[in-house]
Amino acid sequence: MSTAHKKLYLHEVATRDGFQNEARFVDTDAKIALINRLSQCGFAKIEVTSFTSPKAIPALRDAEAVMQQITRVPGVIYTVLVPNLRGAERALLSGVDEVNLVMSVSESHNRTNLRMTREQSFAQLGDVAALVRQTEVAINVSLSTAMGCPMEGDVPAAEVLGWMGRFADLGVHGITLCDTTGMAFPSQVGELCRKANAAFPQLELTLHFHNTRGMALANTLAALDAGIDRFDASLGGLGGCPYAPGATGNVCTEELVHMLELDGYDSGVDLAAVLDAATLLPDLIGHDVPSQLLKAGRRLDLHPMPATAGDGIPEQRAFAQQGA
Amino acid sequence: MSTAHKKLYLHEVATRDGFQNEARFVDTDAKIALINRLSQCGFAKIEVTSFTSPKAIPALRDAEAVMQQITRVPGVIYTVLVPNLRGAERALLSGVDEVNLVMSVSESHNRTNLRMTREQSFAQLGDVAALVRQTEVAINVSLSTAMGCPMEGDVPAAEVLGWMGRFADLGVHGITLCDTTGMAFPSQVGELCRKANAAFPQLELTLHFHNTRGMALANTLAALDAGIDRFDASLGGLGGCPYAPGATGNVCTEELVHMLELDGYDSGVDLAAVLDAATLLPDLIGHDVPSQLLKAGRRLDLHPMPATAGDGIPEQRAFAQQGA
Repeated sequence: MSTAHKKLYLHEVATRDGFQNEARFVDTDAKIALINRLSQCGFAKIEVTSFTSPKAIPALRDAEAVMQQITRVPGVIYTVLVPNLRGAERALLSGVDEVNLVMSVSESHNRTNLRMTREQSFAQLGDVAALVRQTEVAINVSLSTAMGCPMEGDVPAAEVLGWMGRFADLGVHGITLCDTTGMAFPSQVGELCRKANAAFPQLELTLHFHNTRGMALANTLAALDAGIDRFDASLGGLGGCPYAPGATGNVCTEELVHMLELDGYDSGVDLAAVLDAATLLPDLIGHDVPSQLLKAGRRLDLHPMPATAGDGIPEQRAFAQQGA
Repeated sequence: MSTAHKKLYLHEVATRDGFQNEARFVDTDAKIALINRLSQCGFAKIEVTSFTSPKAIPALRDAEAVMQQITRVPGVIYTVLVPNLRGAERALLSGVDEVNLVMSVSESHNRTNLRMTREQSFAQLGDVAALVRQTEVAINVSLSTAMGCPMEGDVPAAEVLGWMGRFADLGVHGITLCDTTGMAFPSQVGELCRKANAAFPQLELTLHFHNTRGMALANTLAALDAGIDRFDASLGGLGGCPYAPGATGNVCTEELVHMLELDGYDSGVDLAAVLDAATLLPDLIGHDVPSQLLKAGRRLDLHPMPATAGDGIPEQRAFAQQGA
């Protein structure tokens, strides 16, 4: 099955899922400048910020200012995370294209992360959906821990499909299956994506991977094989995981785009522009980023032959390095 | 196509491909102790060391002592890298099960890494093969830069197959296709593996990936899909790449085993034992290792619910973290 030129849709989430995990506050102007650069890169969607309590996530306390001051590029969907009715009202006033609601598929993670039972979350998000449906704004739901819960372990696919069904009944446009703490593995991803696509063909389905255990790109391959064409990713691989100190974050945008381009997909994203943007991150957040591609360069960023390369003169042979 | 319980063969290369890249000399006793632990982990093969010039690779200047003093476990193949006739003589005296010859598929990399033209390398390795064929010792050939050269760029599959054919004619038992600087991508890997398997069904074919651009596990999936059942990997992800300072190294053994086990393969390797061994590395080499799994733990190494998890009491909701 050829993948040549298959069109994909990439969503950049670094300024939300990335920055919310950073200790250092990124200046509002710097956020806006970064998002303006990202708007030129060819993403289908940018998750700009989160309209949550400034007490809960001080890193994103400037949500209104950022959302209102970015330069919006026609064709790019500007979405924001919204946890509740108050957040939705703020988001709608800021002129978002989409609200991204969130709850966890596992009870333990929902209670830990959102401090509510899942039923309480669902009721609250139902109120949000009812409000937003009165507008032109689209509704996406991100289902956290859809491929594993750090407290409960396996999350049955039936449970994921059940919650998808309940949100589909609320009239949402899309659902994102989130591997919140990097517990997904390829065969699981393939199976879940096939089931979800078959059960809800009317929903835009997005996959959201974290690279916590190194499998984000392998899981992406499995999702692609199952027909998925929408992926969240984070510039520089920002993201992190509160359960794994020092662990890497979301799947890295530039590494995802690099692989997809090599494999012949049309991601729509300009890899050189993304790499340029990623170089800004260490100064903004005050530390190195997980991105390997930023260190190694693209596959065909070639290196000169060193002046010491041998020409077959015997005495040079003794110094061979013999790596494989 | 079910992969359930398919038998795979994993080769641990950290004490060769990993240690040769380290600035700090790992004490001979520590090397022996680590290899003895690795011998208990279920690997099909362990690349113990390299019989090269101590001037070229001082980190492995104790090749004889290590090879002769390890406790060999029946069933495990103990192999060593051998660059030339002198190295082969030393290896045979040390009682190895296999010699692993090496040359690059690309002329520029061969001249840089081995200080010879490819034809000079091939002639020299022909002499080595002639010597080793007089013994019971097996011969493997590692073909470097088989999926890309950091100086030349793309390496045509036909070039790889051509060199495989010349070594097959020398009577070698196996060939390892090495993605020396992490330039391979999934669709390329699948195509090359299918061609190589079809052309040389009599050869044991091994894939050797580096994670330089984050694709090592994705490339492994592609190789598995193409029927490959042998993989090199390096404990902790040791390895590195001289062309990408700070970049990650070989595919990480524990991350590879973890993914393969989750996907239902029978790797033969005890993941808990491998993780235990990997915890020793930072002290041995004096720095952190690329392994993400060592930081994050296995997928089902679960975490307790924090005491602060909400039970739905409204005032707690304000502090929700709302990550996805």
